[in-house]
Amino acid sequence: MAKKTQRFALISVYNKDGIDKVAKKLLDFNIKIISTGGTEKYLNKIGIETEKVEKLTNYPSIFGGRVKTLHPKIFGGILQRRDSKNDNTEKKKYNIPEIDFVIVDLYPFEDTVNNSKSHAEIIEKIDIGGISLIRASAKNFNDVVCVSSRDQYERFVNDLEENQSVFSSAKKKEYALEAFLLSSNYDNLISQYFNNGNLMVKKILRYGENPHQEGFFEGDLNDVFEKLNGKELSYNNLLDIDSAVSIISEFWSNKPTFAILKHNNACGLSTRSNIFEAYKSALEGDPISAFGGVLISNSNIDSKTSNEINDLFFEVILAPSFDVDALKILKSKKNRIILKLKNIDFSKISVRSCLNGKLYQDKDLVTDSMEDLRIVTKHKPNKSETDDLLFASKICKHTKSNTIVLAKNNQLISSGTGQTSRVDALNQAIDKAKKFKFNLDGAVMASDAFFPFPDCVEIASKNGIKSVIQPGGSIKDKLSIDFCNKNSISMVMTGNRHFKH
Amino acid sequence: MAKKTQRFALISVYNKDGIDKVAKKLLDFNIKIISTGGTEKYLNKIGIETEKVEKLTNYPSIFGGRVKTLHPKIFGGILQRRDSKNDNTEKKKYNIPEIDFVIVDLYPFEDTVNNSKSHAEIIEKIDIGGISLIRASAKNFNDVVCVSSRDQYERFVNDLEENQSVFSSAKKKEYALEAFLLSSNYDNLISQYFNNGNLMVKKILRYGENPHQEGFFEGDLNDVFEKLNGKELSYNNLLDIDSAVSIISEFWSNKPTFAILKHNNACGLSTRSNIFEAYKSALEGDPISAFGGVLISNSNIDSKTSNEINDLFFEVILAPSFDVDALKILKSKKNRIILKLKNIDFSKISVRSCLNGKLYQDKDLVTDSMEDLRIVTKHKPNKSETDDLLFASKICKHTKSNTIVLAKNNQLISSGTGQTSRVDALNQAIDKAKKFKFNLDGAVMASDAFFPFPDCVEIASKNGIKSVIQPGGSIKDKLSIDFCNKNSISMVMTGNRHFKH
Repeated sequence: MAKKTQRFALISVYNKDGIDKVAKKLLDFNIKIISTGGTEKYLNKIGIETEKVEKLTNYPSIFGGRVKTLHPKIFGGILQRRDSKNDNTEKKKYNIPEIDFVIVDLYPFEDTVNNSKSHAEIIEKIDIGGISLIRASAKNFNDVVCVSSRDQYERFVNDLEENQSVFSSAKKKEYALEAFLLSSNYDNLISQYFNNGNLMVKKILRYGENPHQEGFFEGDLNDVFEKLNGKELSYNNLLDIDSAVSIISEFWSNKPTFAILKHNNACGLSTRSNIFEAYKSALEGDPISAFGGVLISNSNIDSKTSNEINDLFFEVILAPSFDVDALKILKSKKNRIILKLKNIDFSKISVRSCLNGKLYQDKDLVTDSMEDLRIVTKHKPNKSETDDLLFASKICKHTKSNTIVLAKNNQLISSGTGQTSRVDALNQAIDKAKKFKFNLDGAVMASDAFFPFPDCVEIASKNGIKSVIQPGGSIKDKLSIDFCNKNSISMVMTGNRHFKH
Repeated sequence: MAKKTQRFALISVYNKDGIDKVAKKLLDFNIKIISTGGTEKYLNKIGIETEKVEKLTNYPSIFGGRVKTLHPKIFGGILQRRDSKNDNTEKKKYNIPEIDFVIVDLYPFEDTVNNSKSHAEIIEKIDIGGISLIRASAKNFNDVVCVSSRDQYERFVNDLEENQSVFSSAKKKEYALEAFLLSSNYDNLISQYFNNGNLMVKKILRYGENPHQEGFFEGDLNDVFEKLNGKELSYNNLLDIDSAVSIISEFWSNKPTFAILKHNNACGLSTRSNIFEAYKSALEGDPISAFGGVLISNSNIDSKTSNEINDLFFEVILAPSFDVDALKILKSKKNRIILKLKNIDFSKISVRSCLNGKLYQDKDLVTDSMEDLRIVTKHKPNKSETDDLLFASKICKHTKSNTIVLAKNNQLISSGTGQTSRVDALNQAIDKAKKFKFNLDGAVMASDAFFPFPDCVEIASKNGIKSVIQPGGSIKDKLSIDFCNKNSISMVMTGNRHFKH
């Protein structure tokens, strides 16, 4: 019988906690330990004998420890295929040890960034040798067990015992999977740091959409706004703020505009010559839904407006700036979240979970403008109607589908939101308009998608609506156009559908 | 003046396209090329002189090329700090070359998986040396330019020319960032492969939510369903299917249940003793919205049901199985998407874009059951009402907030969906119920969140609703309870809010 090959375990760990038990268990199975630097010193100190990497490679640790294990004797020891005749011949020829276990524990890169004082120090701590050891042993999981984090020590010691140090292929593959997850995540953090000098912060939220769901936000909210007052932001606050920032960004360079959102939809929005009037006019849209809402402005909030807003119970207010007096008034309720908006420019790609994967898409970055409008009726919208059509279309784009938005004089009158039928959306909008005593005569209507039937323009006409904006593209467009022509309604088509779910 | 150090570039590329231009440009600046294996052969063949890695390291390529560059002379050459006196001393002592450029192009791991015939072949192609070179040079970006993909060749050649081979720190950092993104992504793909023997497939969709948005799905839809008929799935189809599968999973082990969805909300749903009745009863909920909808069943579809469904224009149908005849009938329209549902068990975590980051949360996995019901009124729901309360609550949980769901005899009567006010949601549900001639007498009402005021129970009572399910928890709960007690309405509280946005 051939002489049994001496098996080795290479141990290189940052945190020494628990490594004693691992090392002792390996020795129990007559596995020799190869080690270097701090790990070696620690193991020797607690009476565990090791083979020094430098002795094996006959090469010193150079460049302040930057290059220690990156040597063919070590990597050969890991990567050699035990079932290859050629590899076994070369192994003997070059006197390469058979490394069956690689145990690495890296200094977590999050901690590096959080605890290091200088950029140079952070760069210095980027691990090269350890990751290479992990990746090489995980690649050769057929022959090598890769322990890539001290979180696995306990399991590994149990596995050693249970399997009498001979691991099944499936078991070794499990360790290899965890190894590649770790290396992928490690480099992902480095790229984040290289990208903006920081890591994506995970902000644990009190809970998710509902109290029985856990949730967290990954990103740096300090880049979006400065928090001036109020309680912790919740998952639902963040969703609403996202919708609020999206909709106000459509009006960013316009005259003063104020929006009120509930459940991610605008229930009030208006553009006026000053922010006081804009707020009052936005609130008219739906003073009932506004209760507990999220408020956003594209303009500075002055004290006159603050005084007016102060009467409303709301959760969050966002604005690019606040007058000192205005802020003092708003801060009178300590729970109110007051955010000074710093940035409205985010990733152009969105992602969301779907089935067993994720849906990615470009965000809807098309805003309907004068150039998009194709007048399809005999009757043409006048200047004021055209303004209102574009105004309504912007709101429509940021309201959940199906939606119909009614507007007049740069004021959101009402909308039908999240409906399964377009007619229902319109009826709902009309009911709301009536409930809040709006005069729909001369109002305009925006639809996020085409009209499959002329029913919507019929209902609109009956209620005094005089102009319509919609993408067009139904095979029955003509029916809607014909009806408009007979009833002195103007209609423009944009070619841009704006579904939002 | 000190003698100028000879600068080296290490080149190790899988795909040789364009590497000639890179090598020649490097030579123009008197940078010597270190190379090995196939790259070396290729460069020599086209007349470009190189230094052999094996000659530099005085170590052979071993284990069939698995270990070539993993040597201190190479990694020392990359990692040495040019501004360190110690490193410069060691460099001279050990005769280590100064490698200022590292050019690597890996065989893409996607292609490895797609083109390899065996698991062993795929494992063999996992790159160790190349990734180590990339990571080491990116770490030492202060001193080294890391070109990590042939996509960068053109830019690199321009940069070499423009900067006369001396790169700014910012420029080198850019390359380093791209390097770590690549290594992170590379190992992410490996871990996917180790996890399920496959890679997450990116399925490019015709477009995103709207035609002007690009979109793709990342995941393996073949694990979810088998496609039996119809056109390509769209982004919006997938969103609807996700909602459809979520809602039907609540009824998975129930009696035959059929649901019809539009814009991610159920507009019809019913449980009956057979699937034919379940479909007919689901359709009654809103035969208008059902047009163009997504249909889903928890049971086999027989030919009788198929014949009935065949009259409806719809986009997608999902069921765990179809009788042969049934399938034949449904396939009569070639665009209809027919999916045989294989799996309803997905990740328990959801993610979505929000502001400059992402929101993660546990999915809402709580289904209200008998044990959750706390009867808070004098009047108690009877057996049939209790069944309907739990039935309505399941639908409510999967309908966009704010929502009110009305149900009777295991049939969804109507719902108010995606509303900014709870009263609006209820009014909308009642209007829809009336429109489709439902008798609300004895119906039950489910609300996804508590009632802040007693207005909802007042409206419900006026319309014949006899039992209510809601989470409770408003400071004004008592007002709603008092009203119910005075009007012989039963109410149960669950403690589980079910917002869904």
